Amino acid sequence: MPYKVLVIPGDGVGPEVVEAALYVIKAAASKYGVDLEIKTAEAGDAALRKYGTAMPPEALKLADEADVIFKGPIGESAYDVTSLIRMRYLLYANIRPVKNLPGVPAVKEIDCIFVRENVEDVYVGAEYRVGDVAIALKVITEKGTRRVARVARKYAEMRGRRVTIIHKANVLRVVDAFFRDVAMEELRGLEVDQMYVDAAAMELVRNPKRFDVVLTTNQYGDILTDLAAQVAGGIGLAPSGNIGDSKAMFEPVHGAAFDIAGKGIANPIATILSAAMMFEWMGRKDVANAIIVAVEKSIEKGIKTPDIGGDKSTIEVGKFIASII
Amino acid sequence: MPYKVLVIPGDGVGPEVVEAALYVIKAAASKYGVDLEIKTAEAGDAALRKYGTAMPPEALKLADEADVIFKGPIGESAYDVTSLIRMRYLLYANIRPVKNLPGVPAVKEIDCIFVRENVEDVYVGAEYRVGDVAIALKVITEKGTRRVARVARKYAEMRGRRVTIIHKANVLRVVDAFFRDVAMEELRGLEVDQMYVDAAAMELVRNPKRFDVVLTTNQYGDILTDLAAQVAGGIGLAPSGNIGDSKAMFEPVHGAAFDIAGKGIANPIATILSAAMMFEWMGRKDVANAIIVAVEKSIEKGIKTPDIGGDKSTIEVGKFIASII
Ligand SMILES: CC(C)[C@H](C(=O)O)[C@@H](O)C(=O)O
Ligand SMILES: CC(C)[C@H](C(=O)O)[C@@H](O)C(=O)O
Repeated sequence: MPYKVLVIPGDGVGPEVVEAALYVIKAAASKYGVDLEIKTAEAGDAALRKYGTAMPPEALKLADEADVIFKGPIGESAYDVTSLIRMRYLLYANIRPVKNLPGVPAVKEIDCIFVRENVEDVYVGAEYRVGDVAIALKVITEKGTRRVARVARKYAEMRGRRVTIIHKANVLRVVDAFFRDVAMEELRGLEVDQMYVDAAAMELVRNPKRFDVVLTTNQYGDILTDLAAQVAGGIGLAPSGNIGDSKAMFEPVHGAAFDIAGKGIANPIATILSAAMMFEWMGRKDVANAIIVAVEKSIEKGIKTPDIGGDKSTIEVGKFIASII
Repeated sequence: MPYKVLVIPGDGVGPEVVEAALYVIKAAASKYGVDLEIKTAEAGDAALRKYGTAMPPEALKLADEADVIFKGPIGESAYDVTSLIRMRYLLYANIRPVKNLPGVPAVKEIDCIFVRENVEDVYVGAEYRVGDVAIALKVITEKGTRRVARVARKYAEMRGRRVTIIHKANVLRVVDAFFRDVAMEELRGLEVDQMYVDAAAMELVRNPKRFDVVLTTNQYGDILTDLAAQVAGGIGLAPSGNIGDSKAMFEPVHGAAFDIAGKGIANPIATILSAAMMFEWMGRKDVANAIIVAVEKSIEKGIKTPDIGGDKSTIEVGKFIASII
């Protein structure tokens, strides 16, 4: 049975980086014998303009049927596409590995993996405005915390058995303390420490090597993973996987970057490494590793986009990586 | 009439850095003829252990009577002291200038001023737990946004007339959009742009020079100012002022740092620069400038604590700066 993959190219640089990644995905699937059935759907700002909805019924139907979604960045309508997919399919763990790539200048050495809770917190969309007051609910559940903490445990068991829980329980003494305490329980037996989110932001610049597995709530994770990606060498290199119990979505951490869209200069590596994560999720760590090795080789050989000091185009990088897989 | 200054030494390194800063405050006040009536109060973790409350009635009474509070960092009970003072006296604008100091190694060049809303957002303390669900309210009011935006306007008018509003209105489409829209209105006529908080965290590392005045909500401000301080050269150098319509509190951005407390190695500069901000708030920009010049001279002369490459103690640095004011 083939894996049903739904590709959503997205907005801005999305179609370019996804096209580049598709060369790699197809080459890898064919070389390593992974049976994929690839479909494509329009969703995002462009779909909103065209169909009046950012996630048209056709895209939703294909997403419902798919085993896995491979998505480019979405523009202003990201909440209606990205967050919708995360919520609808309960993709409760957002996995964001952050690691330097050889040959890419970085702010600091870093090698950690963020496990970001992905469906709760202020992302639940419970917001109200009453006259001159606006209120949003930050929601944390025990169940939601346990399931994402178990994912952090899994990664910790594959790595250094060390987890840092990031929260702000000195201010959010009910909600963040609840997250921390439930997570602590789930992580029993591992080496667990904790850090306030403001201190963590500082520490990610001062001494990022201290982090191994990082477990945090949705919005702190949003902020800290962009930061960590920049510390590692730039947001153009940061992949992610949104994982649920039966379905998943893979996407670059970066946004639509409208300012450079259509110029062929967007770095496809974040998206290509997201494809590697997808193969790993399919149980094909061998394919994932082959992609990572090919990415590293492409950088070594100077086949790079301008953001990391090269002069190749998005598609050239994708085709090259596909060719050496 | 003297200014009534209440000094709260605080926890951890607090008493040391405050003692060092008091040398400077007293020297500056006497040289420049600023009439200060200084009282001291115990508050924080140590007070909690001693009196059973982090903000004892005596401290509260003195704080009520004071014109201005000069505070060291507080430990685990910071919410009961720092946040309480901010809320009780409606110190709605947290001013955090971030700038490299000559001779201090930095991640990047940076020269901006954060205006952080200081009494709303998840800091209002409206949190509930019902069984296995915990909920906190994030509250933004029109009034609260207008008054802090006006402070940002004031700083922008003294500087480059440029304000960046930081929010996450693509997810918090009611609450953060409300903050942004109201702020935009108040900032009319200035050069205003906006950035999502995750992108801002990245940008503070990638290209911090792009920021001039930054206006943001309470918790984003908490996270981003620690980060920005680290980019500028370290949290040991970052001062802050909590400003209301009639009262103010000045304090270093850093925390109690229990791990180095009592060792005499904490950098007092963040606290001394907070004293400079206090004099500026008193209308004595001349005194503030004299302190800043003396701080820069002390670094130039190598009178520095270990965190910025020196071998002097907290008190030695304070005394030296006081001596050359
Ligand atoms: C686009 C936005 C909804 C999204 C988020 O905030 O989660 C993005 O920033 C991310 O990190 O995937
Ligand atoms: C100690 C804590 C309550 C405080 C905050 O979160 O505001 C601190 O981090 C700060 O930035 O002043």
